[in-house]
Amino acid sequence: MASHYRNFRHSLPWLILLLEAVFIVLFYFFPGDGASRSHISYPAFQDVNHMVIFGFGFFLMFLKRYGFSSTGFNLLIIVLGVQCSMVIEGLLVFLLKMANEDRLKRITKAAVSMTAVVISSGAVLGKINPVQLILMTVVEIIVFHVSRWINNTFLQVPDNISMMHVHLFGAYFGLAVSSWFSEPSPRSEKNASTPKSDLFSMLGTLFLWVFWPSFNSVLAVNKSKAIYNTYFTLAVSAVTAFVLSVLTTKDGKFRMTHIHSAVLAGGVTVGYAAHSIEYPWIAMILGLLASVIAILGSYCLQRCLTPALKIHDASGVHFTFGLPGVLGALAQVVLLVIKNWTNLPSLGYLVLINVGAFCVTISVALITGFITGFILNRKLFRTIPVSKYFEDQFYWE
Amino acid sequence: MASHYRNFRHSLPWLILLLEAVFIVLFYFFPGDGASRSHISYPAFQDVNHMVIFGFGFFLMFLKRYGFSSTGFNLLIIVLGVQCSMVIEGLLVFLLKMANEDRLKRITKAAVSMTAVVISSGAVLGKINPVQLILMTVVEIIVFHVSRWINNTFLQVPDNISMMHVHLFGAYFGLAVSSWFSEPSPRSEKNASTPKSDLFSMLGTLFLWVFWPSFNSVLAVNKSKAIYNTYFTLAVSAVTAFVLSVLTTKDGKFRMTHIHSAVLAGGVTVGYAAHSIEYPWIAMILGLLASVIAILGSYCLQRCLTPALKIHDASGVHFTFGLPGVLGALAQVVLLVIKNWTNLPSLGYLVLINVGAFCVTISVALITGFITGFILNRKLFRTIPVSKYFEDQFYWE
Amino acid sequence: MASHYRNFRHSLPWLILLLEAVFIVLFYFFPGDGASRSHISYPAFQDVNHMVIFGFGFFLMFLKRYGFSSTGFNLLIIVLGVQCSMVIEGLLVFLLKMANEDRLKRITKAAVSMTAVVISSGAVLGKINPVQLILMTVVEIIVFHVSRWINNTFLQVPDNISMMHVHLFGAYFGLAVSSWFSEPSPRSEKNASTPKSDLFSMLGTLFLWVFWPSFNSVLAVNKSKAIYNTYFTLAVSAVTAFVLSVLTTKDGKFRMTHIHSAVLAGGVTVGYAAHSIEYPWIAMILGLLASVIAILGSYCLQRCLTPALKIHDASGVHFTFGLPGVLGALAQVVLLVIKNWTNLPSLGYLVLINVGAFCVTISVALITGFITGFILNRKLFRTIPVSKYFEDQFYWE
Repeated sequence: MASHYRNFRHSLPWLILLLEAVFIVLFYFFPGDGASRSHISYPAFQDVNHMVIFGFGFFLMFLKRYGFSSTGFNLLIIVLGVQCSMVIEGLLVFLLKMANEDRLKRITKAAVSMTAVVISSGAVLGKINPVQLILMTVVEIIVFHVSRWINNTFLQVPDNISMMHVHLFGAYFGLAVSSWFSEPSPRSEKNASTPKSDLFSMLGTLFLWVFWPSFNSVLAVNKSKAIYNTYFTLAVSAVTAFVLSVLTTKDGKFRMTHIHSAVLAGGVTVGYAAHSIEYPWIAMILGLLASVIAILGSYCLQRCLTPALKIHDASGVHFTFGLPGVLGALAQVVLLVIKNWTNLPSLGYLVLINVGAFCVTISVALITGFITGFILNRKLFRTIPVSKYFEDQFYWE
Repeated sequence: MASHYRNFRHSLPWLILLLEAVFIVLFYFFPGDGASRSHISYPAFQDVNHMVIFGFGFFLMFLKRYGFSSTGFNLLIIVLGVQCSMVIEGLLVFLLKMANEDRLKRITKAAVSMTAVVISSGAVLGKINPVQLILMTVVEIIVFHVSRWINNTFLQVPDNISMMHVHLFGAYFGLAVSSWFSEPSPRSEKNASTPKSDLFSMLGTLFLWVFWPSFNSVLAVNKSKAIYNTYFTLAVSAVTAFVLSVLTTKDGKFRMTHIHSAVLAGGVTVGYAAHSIEYPWIAMILGLLASVIAILGSYCLQRCLTPALKIHDASGVHFTFGLPGVLGALAQVVLLVIKNWTNLPSLGYLVLINVGAFCVTISVALITGFITGFILNRKLFRTIPVSKYFEDQFYWE
Repeated sequence: MASHYRNFRHSLPWLILLLEAVFIVLFYFFPGDGASRSHISYPAFQDVNHMVIFGFGFFLMFLKRYGFSSTGFNLLIIVLGVQCSMVIEGLLVFLLKMANEDRLKRITKAAVSMTAVVISSGAVLGKINPVQLILMTVVEIIVFHVSRWINNTFLQVPDNISMMHVHLFGAYFGLAVSSWFSEPSPRSEKNASTPKSDLFSMLGTLFLWVFWPSFNSVLAVNKSKAIYNTYFTLAVSAVTAFVLSVLTTKDGKFRMTHIHSAVLAGGVTVGYAAHSIEYPWIAMILGLLASVIAILGSYCLQRCLTPALKIHDASGVHFTFGLPGVLGALAQVVLLVIKNWTNLPSLGYLVLINVGAFCVTISVALITGFITGFILNRKLFRTIPVSKYFEDQFYWE
C-alpha cells in the first residue's frame, strides 16, 4: 500500500509546477502597476504577512505529531494562494476594465484573502494530503473572489467590508469540505496535543492576537478607529475567554484550546464594524459576546451538533472563526439599524445589502465547499487512510 | 483540600466579570477622543504591544512546568490592566480637567504602564494564584498612576520621564509583595528550568532586546536619539553579560539566566536618559555599568541579601529591573549635573526634582507593595500551598 | 584536559573587554551625526535588526544540543560586530573625508553587514569556540568593509549594490575558514537535528522569509519595487522548494533542511536586482532558479564536491547563500545586458564593473577566509577536540 501513496506523491511536483508555470505566464501578460503611491503602509502589510505565514502556521501547530506539516504546508498554500489570488485580481482588472491598484495593495489583499484558505485548511488539518490541499486552495480562492465580486458588483458592498467576509467564508467552506472526511477513531492518540505543541500554538495565537488590529485596519478607511476598536474587542474577548473557560470545564481549570480560540474570536467579530464603531464600550461588548459565542459554541457543537452531523472540525474553526463571523455580521446590521433608524428608506436598503452579502457568502461557501469536498474525496485523489491521519512521518523524512 | 481551591476558583470568574463590567460602564461615560492626529506611530505602538504581550510572556517562561501559566496569565493581566489603566487616565482627565490625548497614545501609555505589573508578577511568579494576581494588578496600576501623578504634578517631572519609573516601581512593588510569600523548599525540583524552557525564555528575551529601542522611544520627544542610545546601551550590556557570566560562574561557563537578565539591564538603565544623551560612548558606558550591576547584583543578592531578608525573587526582577533602574535614575542625575554645572541654581532644582521623583516612586512602591502583599496573603484569598507552587497542572487541564 | 579549556575560557572575557574598550574610546573620538533626517524608516530598520538577531539566531538552531550556543553566540557576535562595523565606517568617514550619514542609516548598514559574519558562522557552527568566533567576526567585518570600499571606489559600484554582496562574501569566507576545521566523525550523533530543534529552526526561517523584503529594500532607492520583487521571488522559491524536495529525496518525502535553505535562496538571489526588475514574472523565474540551484546544489555538493575538498559545511551555507548569491550576481549581469543591449559601449562598461565586483568579492572572501582559518586553527587558539563539537554543555552551565 505504501507504494500507492509514493506514486501519488510523484504527482504532487507536477501539479505544483504546472500551477506555477501558469502563474508566471499569466503574470507575463498582466498590465503593469496602477497608482504609484500606496495607501497601504509597508509595516501594516508586514504585520498581515507575518500573521498569515507565521501566526497561522504556529496557531495550527497544536497537534502532537503534525508540527512540520502545519507550518510547512501553511507556507506552501499561502505562497501558491497569494499568486493565484493576484492572478485572479489581474484577470478581473483585465476583463472588467476595473481600475488597477498599486502593488502593495494587491499583495496585501491577496494575503488577506488567503486567510480564508488557511482557516479552511484548519478544519481538515491532518486529514487531507498536499495535493488535495493545493486543489482546495485554488478552488477556494477562485470561489472566494467570485463571491466577493458578486458582493461588490450586485450588492455594492464596499471592498473593505466584503474582504472581512474572509473568516466566515473560510470557516464554512472548510466545514463543508471536512464533512466528507471521516472522523479519526476516538482511540487514536495522534489527534491530541502535548504541552509542548500547545505552547507552540500559544506562540502563534499571541502573534495573531498582537497583529489583529493591523489585519482589521490595513484596508479600512478610518485606520485609527479600526485599530482602537479592534484592540478593545480583543482585550475583552481575552478576558472573557479566561472567565468562561473556568466556568465550562469540569473542575474549574483553564483549558488551553478555549483560550486559543476565544482570544481570537473578538478580532473576527469586530472585523466588519471596526472602522465605524464610535465608542469603545460597544467594541468591548462585542468582544464579550464573541468570547461567549466561541466558548459556548465549542461546548455545544462538540456535544450536540458535531456528533449529529458527523462533521469533524480538526481545529475548531467553526467556533473560532465561523460563529464569531456570524455574530460580527449580525452586529454590523444591528449597529446600522441603531445609527440610521431615523432614515427608514435608506436603512432598509442598507440592511438588505448587508444581510444579502452575508447570505451570499455563506451559501456560496457551503455549496462550493461541499462540492469541493466531494471531488477531493474521489479515488483519483486517493485520500490518506484514516490510520495515517495527523502524522508528519507520512510526509516528512 | 482540593475542593478548597476548586471553590476558590469559582470566585475568579465573578471577580473578572465584575471588573470587566465596571470597565465597560466607565468607558461608557468617558469623553471621546482628544487630538485627532497621533504623535505615536502605529508600528512603534505595535512593538510595545508585542513586547508586553509576547516578549514578557515568553521571557517569564523559564520554569519547567509553568509555561502555560506564564504566558496565559501574562495575557490576562495585561488585557485587564490596560483597560484599568485607561479608566484611571480617563478619570484623571475627567476629575482634573486635564487635556485629553489621542487614542493611540492612551493605549500606548497604558501598555507601557503595564510593564510595572508584569515585572512585579515576575517576582511572585508561580507563587500567587490568578485571583491574587488580578487584585495585585488592579492595586498596582492604581498606585502607579497615583505615584506618577504626584511626580507630574508636585515635582513637575515630564510625563515621558515619569513613565520610565515603571521598571523601578514594578521591581520594588513586586519584591515587597513577594516578601510575604514563603520560599519554596530547596528540595523542590519544580522551581527550576529545563533547556527547553530556557530556550523559550531566550526567545522572549531576544524579542524584548530587539524591541527595547521602541519602548524607550515611543513616548520620547527626540525619538531618533532615544533609539540610537538605547541600541548602543543594549549592545554593550549584551557584550558585558557574556564577559561577566564567564567571570562569575564557577567553571568559567556561561549561565543562561545571567544572559537573560543582563542583556535587558541596559535597556532599563538607559530609559531615563535615552532621549538626552549626546554621545553614544556615554550610552555604551551606561550599558557596561548596567550589566555589571545586574550580574554582580545577582551574585551578591542570592548569597547575602536574599537569605537575610528571606525574600524569594522568583525571576530575579531585583537585579534585572530594580538595580538597573536605580542606576539609571542615578546616571540621569549625574548627566544633569555634568550638563548644567555652570548654572547652579537651576541645577539644584533639577537634581532635587529627579531625586525626589526617585524617592517618591521607590517609597510608594515599597510601602504599597508591602501592604498589598499583606492583604493578598490573608486567609480570605487562600494562598496556594507551597507544595503546589510553580505548577501548571493546578490551573490548567 | 578539561583544565586546558577552562584556562582558555579565562582569556575570553579579556579579549571581549579589550575590544569593547577600544570601541568606546573610538566612539568617543568620532564626529557627531550627519544628516538629521533619515531616509531609513525605523520599522524597516527594526525588521532587519529582528532578522539578524532573532531570525538567524533561531535559523541556526537546528542542531540537537547546540540551541543555547546558536542563539547566544549569534547575539554576542552581532552586538560586537555592529559596533566594530560602525567604528570602521567612522574611520573611513574620518580618513577619507566621506560624507557622514545619519545615525539610523549607520546602524542599519552595520546590521546588514553583519549578515556576512552570521552566514560565515553558520559554516563553522559548533566547531569553533567563542574566542575564535570573535576573532573571525572582527577580521571578517574589517575585510568585508575593505572589499566593499574597493568596489565602491575603484569600480564605482553603488553603495546599496555592493552591500548585497554580503551573502556571497559571508558564504565563501565561511567555507574557506571551515576548510581548516575537520569534519566530525560520521558516527557522531551530535551533528544531527531532532524534530524539536527543526521546529525552532523553522521558526527562525519563517521570520527570515517574512522579513526578507525589508532586508532587500531597506537600503534600496526604489523601495516599493524592491519589496514587490523580493516578495515574488521568495514566494516562487518557496513553492519550488517543496517540488524539488519531493523529487530529490529517496522516497518522495519532504526534507526539512531543503525547505529551510530553498525558501531563503530566492531572497538572496534577488538581492542584487530587486530594485531594478520591471516585471514580476522575471522575479518569479529568478525565484525558481534560486530554489533549483539551492536544492540541486545541496544534492551535488554533499555527494561530490564536499568529500573531494574535505570541506564540512555545518549548516549548508554554500547552497543556501553561496550559490544563490552567484546566481543573483549572474542574473544581474544578464538583466543589464538585456536592458542596455542597444547601447554597447556603456553596456560593456557596466558588465565589466559588475563582473569585477563579483570577482573582487569572491576572491577577497576566499583568500582572507583561508588565511583566517589557518590562523584560527593554530595551537594558540587551541581548538575544541572534535569529540566536543556541537555541544552546548561545553560552554553553558
